[in-house]
Amino acid sequence: MRFTEIAIDTGSRKIIDITDKVREFCRDQGDGLCLVFAPHATAGLALMETGSGSESDLEDTLERLFPHKDIYKHRHGSVGHGANHILPVFVSPSLTVAVRKGLPVLGTWQSIVFVDMNADNPHRRVQCSFVGSPQ
Amino acid sequence: MRFTEIAIDTGSRKIIDITDKVREFCRDQGDGLCLVFAPHATAGLALMETGSGSESDLEDTLERLFPHKDIYKHRHGSVGHGANHILPVFVSPSLTVAVRKGLPVLGTWQSIVFVDMNADNPHRRVQCSFVGSPQ
Amino acid sequence: MRFTEIAIDTGSRKIIDITDKVREFCRDQGDGLCLVFAPHATAGLALMETGSGSESDLEDTLERLFPHKDIYKHRHGSVGHGANHILPVFVSPSLTVAVRKGLPVLGTWQSIVFVDMNADNPHRRVQCSFVGSPQ
Repeated sequence: MRFTEIAIDTGSRKIIDITDKVREFCRDQGDGLCLVFAPHATAGLALMETGSGSESDLEDTLERLFPHKDIYKHRHGSVGHGANHILPVFVSPSLTVAVRKGLPVLGTWQSIVFVDMNADNPHRRVQCSFVGSPQ
Repeated sequence: MRFTEIAIDTGSRKIIDITDKVREFCRDQGDGLCLVFAPHATAGLALMETGSGSESDLEDTLERLFPHKDIYKHRHGSVGHGANHILPVFVSPSLTVAVRKGLPVLGTWQSIVFVDMNADNPHRRVQCSFVGSPQ
Repeated sequence: MRFTEIAIDTGSRKIIDITDKVREFCRDQGDGLCLVFAPHATAGLALMETGSGSESDLEDTLERLFPHKDIYKHRHGSVGHGANHILPVFVSPSLTVAVRKGLPVLGTWQSIVFVDMNADNPHRRVQCSFVGSPQ
């Protein structure tokens, strides 16, 4: 199975477009499925349009649904850190895309984004696994 | 890799059962994984029971969580259109099901539904990709 | 395709760690993708950290987002049962993980959990399907 791990420096960003990095990995593959995976307990992956304001809307929505307030029983981290541990239940860190002739099959307006409301850790990883279609 | 694209006329419907169309695609396959994928930035796919009122409950829930109000920074479309761009982050357009002997493996009460709160575009597509298990 | 069905006795628990059971299934496989799937209309699967309070936080969050109140049109079950049918739209019953040398590829703090707010049925099932990478 073809496998790679991609380093992501989130810095202060919470929604990071990783489409180009996935595309680069897929370029060497043929036809099959690519699992894009974030091996973290406080991050997720999603498909969305980027560059038209939706990243900011998503940050607002996540804060509205999973507020960083003192309402969590999670025992570690700063106040409200429990919210970061709820995020991957709703924004899964496991995302599968089809690959045809080395190209991830995405709609015109779809980008693959890394979603991470946890500002405490700017160094993250994404893993890509490719399983080809048998001939 | 076996691949097909299915046209969906949503009309004014927001939750559309596409199980039969996926089943039809899988009938020609053997054992493996089928990726069902919506190549749109404002639609998602889900597994749910249909025909008992839950479609209506889902519409209400989506409107409650992602209201079509003037609270989004997304720059295009009508007021509240930003909500449609948030939906696929929480209701992913990527859904994988197992296939055994040409049948998608689903529970008795599970249907595959296309979820689309965007009333502006009644013509949609769903792609099915099948990767068989090597012998 | 390697396939197994795992019985889960949820009892009164709503978040059940099934990582060890998935690990056991994967142990006999090589490299490839494992689809973990709950064939139920009121359950989902997720990746999260367990043992630090987040299970309880998730229960609270689910009740906040999908309250068990008399607001659903779903026709069966007790008051608020409609909420259980909305859950799998947001916490999908379909979860794919990579497998390398018989080990599911998970981050240090990630566990696979079965999520089920429906207390009426303590006997549940999870299916694992493995598709290997062709040589």
